[in-house]
Amino acid sequence: MRLYSMPSSGNSYKVRLLLSLLGRDCPTFDVEYETTALDTAKAEGRLPFGKAPVLELDDGRLLPESNAILNWLGEGTDFVPADPFTRAEMLSWMFWEQNQHEGVVAVRAALLYYPQRRHLATPERLAELLDRGHALLQVMEDRLAAQDWLVGDKASVADICLYGYTCTAGTRGGFDMSRFPAINAWLDRIAALPGYKALDA
Amino acid sequence: MRLYSMPSSGNSYKVRLLLSLLGRDCPTFDVEYETTALDTAKAEGRLPFGKAPVLELDDGRLLPESNAILNWLGEGTDFVPADPFTRAEMLSWMFWEQNQHEGVVAVRAALLYYPQRRHLATPERLAELLDRGHALLQVMEDRLAAQDWLVGDKASVADICLYGYTCTAGTRGGFDMSRFPAINAWLDRIAALPGYKALDA
Repeated sequence: MRLYSMPSSGNSYKVRLLLSLLGRDCPTFDVEYETTALDTAKAEGRLPFGKAPVLELDDGRLLPESNAILNWLGEGTDFVPADPFTRAEMLSWMFWEQNQHEGVVAVRAALLYYPQRRHLATPERLAELLDRGHALLQVMEDRLAAQDWLVGDKASVADICLYGYTCTAGTRGGFDMSRFPAINAWLDRIAALPGYKALDA
Repeated sequence: MRLYSMPSSGNSYKVRLLLSLLGRDCPTFDVEYETTALDTAKAEGRLPFGKAPVLELDDGRLLPESNAILNWLGEGTDFVPADPFTRAEMLSWMFWEQNQHEGVVAVRAALLYYPQRRHLATPERLAELLDRGHALLQVMEDRLAAQDWLVGDKASVADICLYGYTCTAGTRGGFDMSRFPAINAWLDRIAALPGYKALDA
């Protein structure tokens, strides 16, 4: 098994974090943004949708999409709930993350973080993303004010998924995290899980 | 069981289509774009992420996100493969749909289809979405030129999911579907499934 991973990306980090929490060793092949390694991996057909992360199984089969990889690795562990409705809710949060949260919270962070994208970071766009991001983070805040984990009674891959970009929403994305005490407590709970590994670790 | 459904939306249509293919009766409560029914459903807390579709179970539990609902309804049927890796690939396509395809193919269609959004449909934005959409549709074309269904050897919820907005990519989105013969043959295969129901049926 091998992980094609973009070190600076929250989507790749989610997978590295789950592997670490599960105590699983998995060699990573770094394909950083705008490097020849990324171009080569694409040209060789290792990134089916043109993006990292991709998990390559020992028999060569390729699995793209961070959240699909989380489900694949999490299946049969404590990070995927056994109860069918709790699993369905877990998927709801993960689809919401890819459709709503990532396109706003991660995008604002990327505009500010990658020098190559700064020219796209107009004041109007940053202001719009700030408002939308605060509204999306409020959805998480409301949920996490009522329960410790997004679904069920323990950490699931939905939490690992949302952690990927929420952990840098303040530092990289410039969102005002002082508004979200329940999110901050949840970030601390995840960082306290045995085997936790930080984004830059 | 009851479905909060937006009649004009591909995301809601996906769920109505799967219910029809499964031969399951499910009353729908229409929450069309910019109607008081939608505002009321939101205000009453029936739409956890503020959007349709949402499936309400008989005990009142609410499940948002079209693709999570497809997985919930499809579990245990022929539309969710038993093989673990095929399931994982199915999820890859569904996350890709929400993260990439929907934000381009559905968004261009919405800009052209809803009179309320026409002011956002600048020539530059429409041109950019056209190019990106053709590139995304090419990803589907390449897959469907090699196999009849997106994953495995029969229709799965990944096919139903991608059908939701691909079926109107030409008519509403203005994409040049003559470039994509394998997609067109796949659209026909889905329309020939027993129990099939069109978007406006």
